[in-house]
Amino acid sequence: MLLHLSTWQEIEDLLRRSRTVVVPIGSNEQHGPTGLLGTDWLCPEIIAHEAHRRGDLLVAPTFNVGMAQHHLGFPGTIALRPSTFMLAIGDWVKSLAAHGFEKIYFLNGHGGNVATIEAAFSEIYAEASYAGRARGFSLKLKNWWDLKGVMSLAQRQFPAGHGSHATPSEIAITQWAYPDAIKAANYAPQIAPSGPIREAADFRARYPDGRMGSDPAQATPEKGGELVAQAVSSLLDDVRAFAGEEAP
Amino acid sequence: MLLHLSTWQEIEDLLRRSRTVVVPIGSNEQHGPTGLLGTDWLCPEIIAHEAHRRGDLLVAPTFNVGMAQHHLGFPGTIALRPSTFMLAIGDWVKSLAAHGFEKIYFLNGHGGNVATIEAAFSEIYAEASYAGRARGFSLKLKNWWDLKGVMSLAQRQFPAGHGSHATPSEIAITQWAYPDAIKAANYAPQIAPSGPIREAADFRARYPDGRMGSDPAQATPEKGGELVAQAVSSLLDDVRAFAGEEAP
Amino acid sequence: MLLHLSTWQEIEDLLRRSRTVVVPIGSNEQHGPTGLLGTDWLCPEIIAHEAHRRGDLLVAPTFNVGMAQHHLGFPGTIALRPSTFMLAIGDWVKSLAAHGFEKIYFLNGHGGNVATIEAAFSEIYAEASYAGRARGFSLKLKNWWDLKGVMSLAQRQFPAGHGSHATPSEIAITQWAYPDAIKAANYAPQIAPSGPIREAADFRARYPDGRMGSDPAQATPEKGGELVAQAVSSLLDDVRAFAGEEAP
Amino acid sequence: MLLHLSTWQEIEDLLRRSRTVVVPIGSNEQHGPTGLLGTDWLCPEIIAHEAHRRGDLLVAPTFNVGMAQHHLGFPGTIALRPSTFMLAIGDWVKSLAAHGFEKIYFLNGHGGNVATIEAAFSEIYAEASYAGRARGFSLKLKNWWDLKGVMSLAQRQFPAGHGSHATPSEIAITQWAYPDAIKAANYAPQIAPSGPIREAADFRARYPDGRMGSDPAQATPEKGGELVAQAVSSLLDDVRAFAGEEAP
Amino acid sequence: MLLHLSTWQEIEDLLRRSRTVVVPIGSNEQHGPTGLLGTDWLCPEIIAHEAHRRGDLLVAPTFNVGMAQHHLGFPGTIALRPSTFMLAIGDWVKSLAAHGFEKIYFLNGHGGNVATIEAAFSEIYAEASYAGRARGFSLKLKNWWDLKGVMSLAQRQFPAGHGSHATPSEIAITQWAYPDAIKAANYAPQIAPSGPIREAADFRARYPDGRMGSDPAQATPEKGGELVAQAVSSLLDDVRAFAGEEAP
Amino acid sequence: MLLHLSTWQEIEDLLRRSRTVVVPIGSNEQHGPTGLLGTDWLCPEIIAHEAHRRGDLLVAPTFNVGMAQHHLGFPGTIALRPSTFMLAIGDWVKSLAAHGFEKIYFLNGHGGNVATIEAAFSEIYAEASYAGRARGFSLKLKNWWDLKGVMSLAQRQFPAGHGSHATPSEIAITQWAYPDAIKAANYAPQIAPSGPIREAADFRARYPDGRMGSDPAQATPEKGGELVAQAVSSLLDDVRAFAGEEAP
Repeated sequence: MLLHLSTWQEIEDLLRRSRTVVVPIGSNEQHGPTGLLGTDWLCPEIIAHEAHRRGDLLVAPTFNVGMAQHHLGFPGTIALRPSTFMLAIGDWVKSLAAHGFEKIYFLNGHGGNVATIEAAFSEIYAEASYAGRARGFSLKLKNWWDLKGVMSLAQRQFPAGHGSHATPSEIAITQWAYPDAIKAANYAPQIAPSGPIREAADFRARYPDGRMGSDPAQATPEKGGELVAQAVSSLLDDVRAFAGEEAP
Repeated sequence: MLLHLSTWQEIEDLLRRSRTVVVPIGSNEQHGPTGLLGTDWLCPEIIAHEAHRRGDLLVAPTFNVGMAQHHLGFPGTIALRPSTFMLAIGDWVKSLAAHGFEKIYFLNGHGGNVATIEAAFSEIYAEASYAGRARGFSLKLKNWWDLKGVMSLAQRQFPAGHGSHATPSEIAITQWAYPDAIKAANYAPQIAPSGPIREAADFRARYPDGRMGSDPAQATPEKGGELVAQAVSSLLDDVRAFAGEEAP
Repeated sequence: MLLHLSTWQEIEDLLRRSRTVVVPIGSNEQHGPTGLLGTDWLCPEIIAHEAHRRGDLLVAPTFNVGMAQHHLGFPGTIALRPSTFMLAIGDWVKSLAAHGFEKIYFLNGHGGNVATIEAAFSEIYAEASYAGRARGFSLKLKNWWDLKGVMSLAQRQFPAGHGSHATPSEIAITQWAYPDAIKAANYAPQIAPSGPIREAADFRARYPDGRMGSDPAQATPEKGGELVAQAVSSLLDDVRAFAGEEAP
Repeated sequence: MLLHLSTWQEIEDLLRRSRTVVVPIGSNEQHGPTGLLGTDWLCPEIIAHEAHRRGDLLVAPTFNVGMAQHHLGFPGTIALRPSTFMLAIGDWVKSLAAHGFEKIYFLNGHGGNVATIEAAFSEIYAEASYAGRARGFSLKLKNWWDLKGVMSLAQRQFPAGHGSHATPSEIAITQWAYPDAIKAANYAPQIAPSGPIREAADFRARYPDGRMGSDPAQATPEKGGELVAQAVSSLLDDVRAFAGEEAP
Repeated sequence: MLLHLSTWQEIEDLLRRSRTVVVPIGSNEQHGPTGLLGTDWLCPEIIAHEAHRRGDLLVAPTFNVGMAQHHLGFPGTIALRPSTFMLAIGDWVKSLAAHGFEKIYFLNGHGGNVATIEAAFSEIYAEASYAGRARGFSLKLKNWWDLKGVMSLAQRQFPAGHGSHATPSEIAITQWAYPDAIKAANYAPQIAPSGPIREAADFRARYPDGRMGSDPAQATPEKGGELVAQAVSSLLDDVRAFAGEEAP
Repeated sequence: MLLHLSTWQEIEDLLRRSRTVVVPIGSNEQHGPTGLLGTDWLCPEIIAHEAHRRGDLLVAPTFNVGMAQHHLGFPGTIALRPSTFMLAIGDWVKSLAAHGFEKIYFLNGHGGNVATIEAAFSEIYAEASYAGRARGFSLKLKNWWDLKGVMSLAQRQFPAGHGSHATPSEIAITQWAYPDAIKAANYAPQIAPSGPIREAADFRARYPDGRMGSDPAQATPEKGGELVAQAVSSLLDDVRAFAGEEAP
């Protein structure tokens, strides 16, 4: 089920048989000369919605803006400060937990989100920890490229120039889902440089077209379709395992 | 243009001729026995995306979770506390302003958001006001039902039982856009009660099926299409006027 | 009773028969060439204290500084950021609720406060909503000019040039209560312009003498006395009705 | 001048010859069986307003709710958390500084406020300190009983049982100013106990009628008048000296 | 016991017989031409650790950075804003209280910390006060120089030029404990000036070498040893008395 | 140099030739039946202080309490909420940057700190990113076990049962530095279980003696000394490289 296309009574019914929900979470940020600004929230949304079509999964609305301060030198990027992001994640989680969800699974599309999401989880758990009580729900963060079999497939598809930002794999996924929005552009060097991530001005100076270590022109919709198929299958397994976990 | 389906270079190009962006903003909350949980963010998204197809408009990703604390008694509702909502709006605005957007137009789909969005605007302006400097951009909030001609059309379509929550007009719009997600349910009384809005437990006790003053079964996809057409036309006019405003 | 001129034992006694308290709330901000900086907190204080003399009402101290960021371009204005204002309202409410007050009625004197006070109420209710419990008290916001019969009287008194800031009605009320502080000044045009409200620098550029849409020279102490009499009568009724409301 | 009974143009004129403002600040909290809940904000207001009548002084509205968490066990007390109090003081100061006030003098009426007001001052100064720039204004905190000659007079008036809360000196001042609100009550022991201050429940258990170390029945309006006269004279001197201080 | 050199099981055992813990707290800030940057956290740590060797005392790790915004004009100073400092103290206290500590004693080494620590205590107590419940633990702040007999000894040792910052007594204590880090420097005047404390730039202009009212060259390790001996003896007594206090 | 045993003038002198500072950062938390509560802040402190003795390094005071909410079920643990930790790191960094430090290197001793420290870095950089300006300093986080050669040495020393919490390597380091505080205890199973980390109650249920995946009895002071030697050498290299980095 897609939560946003359901009624509250349908969710109330669902809760009688399942306490698990998947939240696609990403970022709206520059993705190099050919990547869409929405890439990092579109990818987990595409995978989760496809999984919902193939399996039995409740998918929440997509959390589409995240920790992207380093990309603010490129127009179109929208970023939450980590402190804001943590508060917002906390409110989403407390809302879902208030309805009885006990397993809240964040399918993430942006590496830059990971630290802040984990810090947010700790902040949420901490309330219970200071009080010496059980929290009553469990949180899980999974990057879509860490789903079983996905990264090894991407490395077979793109043995050189996969890189870490504006990668051909993420762009391929959006090409598969949004074939009308496939972009072309010249860029050089073929494989972008790598290095540290600091403030936005530093980032744009180091990575002038926004790519990090990648050669995104290798992306094709077909490769995107293969990646989605693998990710969907592993996501369904991973969510099933999480849903089945019991408290110690 | 849809910002999330564009590259940063396309936005950089656009900024040379326009400094205006539209942000659909809403809420993910119960909408009675037949309304979708996403109704309040889907409606402004539907209208803004349709306007993008018919006119020249830059549309940002949809801000899909808002001020819905009073609906938390109904499963599926996701709410930000007003303080979190204000911080997040501030970060969106500062991101867009950092790129040079000078007119940021929020097309809102949830009455319960209005107070908090206005408070957020004041919080954002206040930084400049304490410092005695110009802010450099202007913010505008418009509810879709306040677009010219929309409410009068809705009142002609639904002379009785329009109400204020889970209204036939908003449900009609989602029916037009998501015909596969049209829901049916029995409810009574035909027109739901009205009254004050307080905490979630009080709300569910007063409004047991979630409706306020409405009889949503009157909604049809056709009426939704009429509402969207009227809203799109007025939105394009309203954004054009806002874009053309000059500072005093 | 005026709370600040009572002892705690008098309040403890009162709580045995009443759980209702009225809090005058306003703003300390410019009110044009002839209006007092205190106008917006003096008006609700004047009305509430007069009501206390004529009826049976517990009146808390006046919350005298509010959301006035847009007036900071005019000397003497003191403004709280919306986020600070919300926290302070929250602490006042939690203090009063800790003593057992169940109906907390804010009599407001400043239109610019409305959004933030409503956001503050939602923030306060939200604690209970996330926790799925009843809040235990009810909050009500009423602007003095929205008390029954007041605005219609003001429109009869000032058929042209009432405007929305530095209005003759609010100035008349302070003239009635503080006849030694009646001010005169030349201004032009007779009726001030109207328009949007943004940051302080923009506001002073649009509204150079601080008025919005008003011609305050029409104010007289006599008209102020008539407005106070009407407001007091309606306030006593409105508070009585609120005190008598029962939870659903 | 009383700021709240002035127009913005009068304050703009004043700023051409003076950059100093006095802010009465206190607390609304229980003051034993005979003390008014408003005692701690009324005293500095009474003294500052009397000084305004006798000298040349700009007096801001009274900051009437402060750090009184320990008194919340007694009905009528309204308390800000220290963190809220600090934010609100910061906003008042930044508002006044925005107009060009360079010497902001807080005349305080509540010992429990001192630590938080000093912490607030440090918070305000810290912004400039991290940035390595001058702050541009100076803040001063003075308790009215620390004005020259005041405490020695109080000790002559009340050689035993002055105590530290609900003191005869503060009650005498309110009796002088509000003779219609003089209260009488039996209490025992004649001189209340002293000890530590912790949370509200602990406070009420230690000090059942709210007094700390005091025998307030010794208060008379005449003694209050003597205290006000001494305080007014010393306040005018102290503010004059502060206004004349030059930066190093 | 030193908490940080113990295992959790040793602390769990200890809690069966004692519920008291001492937290050395200070600041890392300039201490004039001859004082160590760590002086204000080293002194309470030295005293508390020496007391642990001589008596039966549980000593927590040292809270080594505090409220030092006014010293930021001097390299090496590390300061927390008061708001941050309060949150951190709150988290330390809530952690210790979660384990069952009921008497938490802060041995402070920095006068500039006092206001903020007291505000932090009030913030912590306030949670219970708004809720009308007992807090369950007691907090105590003691400056090491206020321990019985210490200041009188310091005044005998340094009858002139003790001053208030970079004092010979605190420097003597660090000389006794860190004889390899004794510093010498010329400075003039012999006794530094005194005056107000504001932002860092103002502070450095008033007190160019960082001293306030002091002549620190009088410090010797021997005098430091005498001060430590006196402080240790009084600390053990004071903690014992605090541990034995019963709730009212 | 150890910053806390230096004077401000020594730091001012140093800044003429170096702009780099190392901050040991860790956590005070349970480390199983034989590990010290201070292990995670002692290890980076031990390594950094030893490096200072062998090379040319400025070492700040140790940031000794971090993100340990999950260990609060074990007495002696002191934890900051992630939000507090981020604010405090921000204030440390802004203090050091105010003095002109341009390379701030955090040597970390606690895996649980990593996400929050990285989020803190992003929060600090974000201020500059929203403003479109350079930040002026660079931040680096390095875990001591990620220093070159350290983990491979640890894996040679402890081929089985190294684990991830209360590891023999970290305990060996504290044994080398604090030989008087070596603890012995029986525990079973020999190698502790592994699994997820959630709130404190869940943690204590899963890992009853506090260990995760480790068999800490393998630790010896000699092995600790080897680890320190390797870490010191690599730390000096790593800091030198960081100090030499130039902005793009």
